[in-house]
Amino acid sequence: MKKSKKIISESQLIYKYLKKLNFDKQEAFNFSNDGAILKSKKNKDIIVTSDNIIEGVDFFKNDSPESVAQKIITYNLSDLSSMGGIPYCYSLCLSLSSKINHLWIKKFTNKLFFLQKKYNFFLLGGDIGKSNQLNISANFYGYVKKNCIIKRNTSKVGDSIWVTGDIGQSHIGLLINQKKIVLSKKFKNYFSNKYLFPNPCMFGSKIINFSSSCIDISDGFLGDLSKLLHNKMGVELYFSKLPFSINAKSLINKKTVEIHSLLNGGDDYELIFTCSSKNDIKITNIASKNRIKITKVGRIIERKGIYFNGSKLSFPNNSYQYFF
Amino acid sequence: MKKSKKIISESQLIYKYLKKLNFDKQEAFNFSNDGAILKSKKNKDIIVTSDNIIEGVDFFKNDSPESVAQKIITYNLSDLSSMGGIPYCYSLCLSLSSKINHLWIKKFTNKLFFLQKKYNFFLLGGDIGKSNQLNISANFYGYVKKNCIIKRNTSKVGDSIWVTGDIGQSHIGLLINQKKIVLSKKFKNYFSNKYLFPNPCMFGSKIINFSSSCIDISDGFLGDLSKLLHNKMGVELYFSKLPFSINAKSLINKKTVEIHSLLNGGDDYELIFTCSSKNDIKITNIASKNRIKITKVGRIIERKGIYFNGSKLSFPNNSYQYFF
Repeated sequence: MKKSKKIISESQLIYKYLKKLNFDKQEAFNFSNDGAILKSKKNKDIIVTSDNIIEGVDFFKNDSPESVAQKIITYNLSDLSSMGGIPYCYSLCLSLSSKINHLWIKKFTNKLFFLQKKYNFFLLGGDIGKSNQLNISANFYGYVKKNCIIKRNTSKVGDSIWVTGDIGQSHIGLLINQKKIVLSKKFKNYFSNKYLFPNPCMFGSKIINFSSSCIDISDGFLGDLSKLLHNKMGVELYFSKLPFSINAKSLINKKTVEIHSLLNGGDDYELIFTCSSKNDIKITNIASKNRIKITKVGRIIERKGIYFNGSKLSFPNNSYQYFF
Repeated sequence: MKKSKKIISESQLIYKYLKKLNFDKQEAFNFSNDGAILKSKKNKDIIVTSDNIIEGVDFFKNDSPESVAQKIITYNLSDLSSMGGIPYCYSLCLSLSSKINHLWIKKFTNKLFFLQKKYNFFLLGGDIGKSNQLNISANFYGYVKKNCIIKRNTSKVGDSIWVTGDIGQSHIGLLINQKKIVLSKKFKNYFSNKYLFPNPCMFGSKIINFSSSCIDISDGFLGDLSKLLHNKMGVELYFSKLPFSINAKSLINKKTVEIHSLLNGGDDYELIFTCSSKNDIKITNIASKNRIKITKVGRIIERKGIYFNGSKLSFPNNSYQYFF
């Protein structure tokens, strides 16, 4: 074990751990240049997203390297997906604290490698620095059909509102990790895993020709949904249709968690998207073909606000402002 | 003054200070989307560079916001230039500590605005987080003639070696800021300014058709020069030709600083480039037309190592490994 505790040199970091992540792609110049190249493709735009995650803010100090890797990848792939993009490559700026040793970096980069293979993208390059606090920022690049990027502010009155997967899964995991709720081991593992190892829903590129707007759930279902309304429209929410997992429903029934907190909890990395109601069947077919669970949870209305059960929902505006 | 000490909200940060930096460019979607778009241009490649700068590592804790802004811009533009690129846009991941107030961010973004106008590029987007330590990472994008990027490892035996500007200016400024040397006010201001407000040498795109390799001086003249040799070749250095400013020469003569330390000191952000000797005159003419000081400081030789005054120079390998 002693060996794995050794302080890691920059050279080791690059040649032993990071180089395997560039998949020998020409664009990365084998990490030997001052920068790298993005290749343009005919009839495609290149999308960029940025996210940084910081120890003690976006993850707990002792969270595993695999969880940190999963989070930085998921945050960004989810953003790419919400715009209709497919992953291309990414760059990493690593600000490493002194606690980062060989074992940590090995586990971290092995998880990155696994996810890169799974979602088919490679490491383009980046920068390495020292910091008191582990801080990882990433820029992700994706391809999207030219002039077809899915935006946030292009939904229309009458459009159907859909959500992928289940709502609030990660939030329950967070409550467990914060020790705010105590659950049986089975439930604990199930929800902790949703929080520590969130998966992006790579459905955006499949519905690019039919969806009128899209956003991923990073700050909470209601907060993110309201961003699609661009302060002009409202939502009629089909309350009884809201998708919760069987495990979450069981906790709701036992009053261990409140629906309200699940609707406001973040980090689901599911997609909320809208489409003209005439495209509902097409959307359903695409989801079925791609084995993605989707649920129609409402429609866009003219009246501002979010309504369900006949009354206006007032919820704390805990939504985040965007840079991007 | 009280107002300027108020903690800054994310919304203020974006709408009051950062929005002016996107120059209303379509690619940035007014910072309202999950990401942004990079536009491809016919016959151009898009270059990417990444750099992060961290309080207490890359700059002193009390360095001015203007200096921090200048450094993050210069580090990246210098990388773009060394590859023959011209600036296009950039994204910023800001991890802000609690000491960052309105006044700081105002000065920081005003300096960014000034530099963006000067070098003609805009802010594409990014991310904002909280951290104990101020940490800024940036990804810069530039255009370069398709398949014409200047690389580091493409110089040949016989090529002339050139350097722009003067060597070691910033290093003397660093020694002053570290209180390792004490100078008169005039000298102190002159060199501190070189260290705190380095300028990129945007000469790379001008010589793209004639240079055989290029690197910017970020880690020191000798260390960066040796990276052009890719462990295969050597350098005959024209020692007496090495460009030092009149002020630096005066300090060398007084033995206040040693030439050796100036040749190893970093952060000059000048360019070292090579060209076939048959292009020497062309290069001289282009430099003259663009009013860039360049000096021919040596030539590439077959024998490994750096030689001057007839003997092999042994210098500590303080060069940095690259990611990019």
